[in-house]
Amino acid sequence: MITAELIAIGSELLTPSFHDTNSLYLTEQLNLVGIPVVMRTIVGDSEIHLEHAIGAAIQRTPLVITIGGLGPTEDDITRKVVAQVTRRQLVLDDGILKGLEARFSSRGRTMPSNNARQALIPSGAKVLVNPNGTAPGVWLETEKNTLILLPGPPGELRPMFEDSCLPQLARVTNGLALERRLYRTTGLPESALDSRIAPIYTRYRNPETTILAKPGQVDIRLTARGRTQEEARAAIEEVGQKIEDELGDYIFTTSEQQLEEVVGMYLVMKRATISTAESCTGGLLAERLTRVPGSSRYFLSGVVTYSNEAKIELASIPPLLLEMEGAVSREVALGLAESVRQKVRATLGVGITGIAGPTGGSPQKPVGTVHIAVAGPSGTEHNQFVFPGRRDRIRWQASQAALDMVRHTLERM
Amino acid sequence: MITAELIAIGSELLTPSFHDTNSLYLTEQLNLVGIPVVMRTIVGDSEIHLEHAIGAAIQRTPLVITIGGLGPTEDDITRKVVAQVTRRQLVLDDGILKGLEARFSSRGRTMPSNNARQALIPSGAKVLVNPNGTAPGVWLETEKNTLILLPGPPGELRPMFEDSCLPQLARVTNGLALERRLYRTTGLPESALDSRIAPIYTRYRNPETTILAKPGQVDIRLTARGRTQEEARAAIEEVGQKIEDELGDYIFTTSEQQLEEVVGMYLVMKRATISTAESCTGGLLAERLTRVPGSSRYFLSGVVTYSNEAKIELASIPPLLLEMEGAVSREVALGLAESVRQKVRATLGVGITGIAGPTGGSPQKPVGTVHIAVAGPSGTEHNQFVFPGRRDRIRWQASQAALDMVRHTLERM
Repeated sequence: MITAELIAIGSELLTPSFHDTNSLYLTEQLNLVGIPVVMRTIVGDSEIHLEHAIGAAIQRTPLVITIGGLGPTEDDITRKVVAQVTRRQLVLDDGILKGLEARFSSRGRTMPSNNARQALIPSGAKVLVNPNGTAPGVWLETEKNTLILLPGPPGELRPMFEDSCLPQLARVTNGLALERRLYRTTGLPESALDSRIAPIYTRYRNPETTILAKPGQVDIRLTARGRTQEEARAAIEEVGQKIEDELGDYIFTTSEQQLEEVVGMYLVMKRATISTAESCTGGLLAERLTRVPGSSRYFLSGVVTYSNEAKIELASIPPLLLEMEGAVSREVALGLAESVRQKVRATLGVGITGIAGPTGGSPQKPVGTVHIAVAGPSGTEHNQFVFPGRRDRIRWQASQAALDMVRHTLERM
Repeated sequence: MITAELIAIGSELLTPSFHDTNSLYLTEQLNLVGIPVVMRTIVGDSEIHLEHAIGAAIQRTPLVITIGGLGPTEDDITRKVVAQVTRRQLVLDDGILKGLEARFSSRGRTMPSNNARQALIPSGAKVLVNPNGTAPGVWLETEKNTLILLPGPPGELRPMFEDSCLPQLARVTNGLALERRLYRTTGLPESALDSRIAPIYTRYRNPETTILAKPGQVDIRLTARGRTQEEARAAIEEVGQKIEDELGDYIFTTSEQQLEEVVGMYLVMKRATISTAESCTGGLLAERLTRVPGSSRYFLSGVVTYSNEAKIELASIPPLLLEMEGAVSREVALGLAESVRQKVRATLGVGITGIAGPTGGSPQKPVGTVHIAVAGPSGTEHNQFVFPGRRDRIRWQASQAALDMVRHTLERM
């Protein structure tokens, strides 16, 4: 069995506040293709320490992956130390150099001479292209080891590892083909979701199923292996189909998209526009909708009506209604949604009112109580929730539930 | 200077979901007494790997701290491996054995024979008592090294380290007292800030100064050592005073607070209220202001006027003005700020309009152009910015700049 060691490089990694998420990510990915990680090392930008770490690792472990230290500065010593330890020359790779120059000139800049350093790789190594940054990765086979040098920024490391390393590792390790599938769900708590799909996935060891819960969202990842790609695909399909049948519309995407991106896509597809009125979420829903590039095509306006006066002034909520029903009520949510929809003639209006805490709760309306309404061409829908957790978690879950109600409304349009 | 290495032991630490918080904690504590951590290793319950790790560490680093593997089971190999690597016998410590037996009998139980293992320590080592668990710690001095063996559960490790190790380490290292200070700044880019304070802090090795830049914010941390607390405090004061003189009002706090918390504090102090009108930030300013618990005391309302219609409808911007000046203009920012201030009778109104990208830029108004206005009792202020970076970064910097303008307005009130 092939085993792996990870070496994360950078003095900033040795400070008290740094979480080495790259190593956790790589551990997960390697485990998925059946490669256990037997040791992890974190080392500063020190040649002598890095030499020790890599030297020891290649003695005992076939697959050694380094993370970071591939930048253009003096501090970035990974290429150099790997060449020393494996007794290779550093050679200038013309392809990398041209790519770097092109990258800079496409932005109207001249490449600083420092960056030429990044074109040096140990002789005999294969270059791993980096579409997301300047530092290319390196794949080096020696007599006893496979060394992979990855850049530190997660946005560069992850795509490089998944596109250029993982398929090859899956083959190298045991001639396996790999297929993966993601289901992102919202609307079911983790325990409820698991009790529905555990009877399915626990019957299979291939694909392997991992479930990751975040506030207001549960992601299900399937990883199947096969002797051929077809075999892996068929294994995924068998279990995936059953999960889809069971969860149906709780699944909002099979891509890495966020819920606001999925909603944005639907809004564009349906040529619909949207307007929001928020109390307890304080603008979070509008902020999430407008995070998406191009959201000006569908997002017209939002109001954050924190005070009662603002509800009256900006969302035309009748003062009497506020007095009779209270600000956190079905009626006020409906009023908010309908008012903002009409005011700017949007296809959809969303109203949120609730108690995010830590104060303001009562036995009748505990902290976490949130009313959400979505007004559309064929009427207004309302849901009441009681979200668990603290202020930020309640606000996030409320924004997630509102987006999901909008998604359902759009699906029916 | 004494340096340290940390070795965390346990196969569970090599799973994808495990965060090694013990190492981060120990790094922080060691840094406090002036001991940098130069390498960290995570190793499973494997004798051969642990031998490698400890063997290599004691060759290169004077202080080696192991975490975990001190329990009563076969898996708990730390004592044994440390004895092997340092060529010591494992000897039964009567004091530990009696303590363990007493611990069990005080709970009406007989000690399982397994636990006797925990009374074995390398000869010549000092026992570190563990009031919170069965596994005692070990302090071992060899010719070249100090080895400290700590238990893995944080509730046992932390009190043991702080009570039985830290005071001694502080004495052993150099009998130092430590003082720290933080300055959080906004409004000056890192390079501009550094060119102003580098002439100050580079003249001192004590305190040590570290600078951490985030979008729209630069944090400066000073750490001073002294033979006494007074000496350390005096060293901090000398440099801190000069930095304060140089940066003045760019410093928004000396605590760990975020800018929206500082602004919230000022709003409460001045008994002021606030209302926002945002275009390119899409609700981010309102969302940040309302993240703070208790913000309903001062935050009245927000509008997100993404479309021109919304600007007209929700913020009473004259259509002619939009046509003549364009939505991204000084005049529209002023109009937004003044209109939302009046509408809900807030003390302050904030208007933001700009181009967050990726599209919508022009040579005259490139992506990143943002106009911000703050309307208050004594008039309306305006600033124009061109923020670098991508959509999310531009939005964040705009919200940061708006909060900072609010802070300045409140300071003058």
